[in-house]
Amino acid sequence: MITFELKHVCKQSGARYGLLHTPHGTFETPIFMPVGTKASVKTLSPKEIKEVSDGLILGNTYHLWLTPGLEVIKLHGGIRGFMKWDKALLTDSGGFQVFSLAENRVIKEEGVYFTNPKNGDKLFLSPEKAIEIQEVLGADIIMSFDECPKIDATYEYMKKSVERTLRWAKRGKDALTTDQALFGIIQGGLNKDLRKYSLEKTVEIGFPGYAIGGLSVGEKDIEMYEMLEFLNPLMPKDKPRYLMGVGEPTDIINAVIHGVDMFDCVLPTRNARHGSVFTTEGKIQIKNKKYELDLTPLDKNLKTKISKYSKSYVRHLFREKEILASRILTYQNLAFLKDFMEKIRTAIKDNRLLDFKKEFLYNYLYTKK
Amino acid sequence: MITFELKHVCKQSGARYGLLHTPHGTFETPIFMPVGTKASVKTLSPKEIKEVSDGLILGNTYHLWLTPGLEVIKLHGGIRGFMKWDKALLTDSGGFQVFSLAENRVIKEEGVYFTNPKNGDKLFLSPEKAIEIQEVLGADIIMSFDECPKIDATYEYMKKSVERTLRWAKRGKDALTTDQALFGIIQGGLNKDLRKYSLEKTVEIGFPGYAIGGLSVGEKDIEMYEMLEFLNPLMPKDKPRYLMGVGEPTDIINAVIHGVDMFDCVLPTRNARHGSVFTTEGKIQIKNKKYELDLTPLDKNLKTKISKYSKSYVRHLFREKEILASRILTYQNLAFLKDFMEKIRTAIKDNRLLDFKKEFLYNYLYTKK
Repeated sequence: MITFELKHVCKQSGARYGLLHTPHGTFETPIFMPVGTKASVKTLSPKEIKEVSDGLILGNTYHLWLTPGLEVIKLHGGIRGFMKWDKALLTDSGGFQVFSLAENRVIKEEGVYFTNPKNGDKLFLSPEKAIEIQEVLGADIIMSFDECPKIDATYEYMKKSVERTLRWAKRGKDALTTDQALFGIIQGGLNKDLRKYSLEKTVEIGFPGYAIGGLSVGEKDIEMYEMLEFLNPLMPKDKPRYLMGVGEPTDIINAVIHGVDMFDCVLPTRNARHGSVFTTEGKIQIKNKKYELDLTPLDKNLKTKISKYSKSYVRHLFREKEILASRILTYQNLAFLKDFMEKIRTAIKDNRLLDFKKEFLYNYLYTKK
Repeated sequence: MITFELKHVCKQSGARYGLLHTPHGTFETPIFMPVGTKASVKTLSPKEIKEVSDGLILGNTYHLWLTPGLEVIKLHGGIRGFMKWDKALLTDSGGFQVFSLAENRVIKEEGVYFTNPKNGDKLFLSPEKAIEIQEVLGADIIMSFDECPKIDATYEYMKKSVERTLRWAKRGKDALTTDQALFGIIQGGLNKDLRKYSLEKTVEIGFPGYAIGGLSVGEKDIEMYEMLEFLNPLMPKDKPRYLMGVGEPTDIINAVIHGVDMFDCVLPTRNARHGSVFTTEGKIQIKNKKYELDLTPLDKNLKTKISKYSKSYVRHLFREKEILASRILTYQNLAFLKDFMEKIRTAIKDNRLLDFKKEFLYNYLYTKK
């Protein structure tokens, strides 16, 4: 089981600094969790993941359930034994992927019937099944099986969906047989009444942490920020709050100001493989011609073990599709986010997060690159 | 410049143990040199390359001359500065690639005219140009510009080619302005008279080391071994002997018995990316279904930092095209060859290389996998 200590609230911004105690380590929040979809944070070894994270990463239930399957992972004692990760882990419920990746999907009260697009297998995922799978995967923190409707769903559909997700949350909680920390998920799209209802009823069921799902799925940034601002005072103060699927630095800092404690996203790792690099001076695209003769490191303000490589060299590797390019860029993007979260936590403790936001955005958005 | 000390000749096999002194380290021979074609030993960081090599690697002149080009590499002070490699380096002359990769190739006495298949640029490579490029690349050991004719070329063509390669070798030596160690290359296909002639005339010009080119290009193994056996007593004893493009363990051990000191090949790194793994119990294909539930390491007799991963996990990564699979398998294949070369050197010093060969082949070829 996990516990959460709210240690400080930033006097300037209201942002929260806390400690998340898990069976595999205590983590300062706000925290960013790199995504290791298929039991690998893409391109990195476990040792490197430790270097560029705080030690809490995410695995995806849907992918690992389908490949390699539970028998293989059970044999290794869970994802942690499978990938040789000795720090903390969170798994999602598979719900998001069922709704975004699966084919021939039919949603019923009992769960979701769908087809594995890779081999045509007919599959069924339910609140109970999602718990059963996540118990095998063995993460410290696991998630309730929810529906994440399209952001433009009708009010009627969204209401029906929120009600069903609440019933599913209760069923998942009842099914849990381990002391893994099961989080509830708040849905409701962009409708404040539904969000408030979803939040209150989920809290009524009672979970050790609460996730906000169904945001960062195509709405405008400002719509997401407004919803987070609306939810902030309504959420339990003594439980961690996890905004799912958000990894853009500007979004993270705004969400932190609205009381969010935990983040995950494939953005830093996926962007890296496309040559898009987070730096303290803003995002750069490494294949740009202007870096051809650039001897400076990717990020002159962030000293890491990949600082020794010149932009010119990394550009060459990237253009030549050398795997080392993806490694270096993934390392930089995660190291950047780790450093960014640490700066956010320091600013919260110093009661100056709004000042930090201004300074950060000035460098990040406006520096001439 | 380099120097070579022949320290011991195996009483059982005649194989040579020596020390190769370079400006960036002294290396025991026989040695295997991993290939870093485009200034990267594919998938590995320089730190990892050190762990799985003896510290002498190869770069390819042809590829680096075309991309990123000499201006970029010159700016970094050579390949070593470009890729942050602080140990020793050897570059080839580009000749082999011009003859295997280039289009619209026209061979003249002055050099070779060809088209860059990537962009249609008309290019010219000559003995002098190959030296000029390799001086910029800055390796400790560099190679003469030679022609590597097809193994089934006529005697007349082969003779003409050998004569021209000798004139090119002399021109390259005359063009050299640095103290890099320029090796001569022996050609002559499968014709012993031509090989003997090529060897004698190349030695007459005089180089600090001699490579054997034009083998491992499609002939039978036994034809290669016979040619090496024929050349062995004719080659200068006090100079290192480098068999180009050979990396299969069975070929290496036979070549060592015939007096070869140095090897390079893309085989271990390329095979790794196709799931083919060198182990002390023979080659395995990691995607094989029988490894699905196999908790043992890739090579139970070779303890390295990747021994912690199960075959089951590596198979999963490989099937899912995770980059970490290529990293782990490349590491294993090169670690295997490093260990293999060390065992060969020990057996030479112990005057029991023929015994070692039998033991090795028994395990490598016949163990039930």
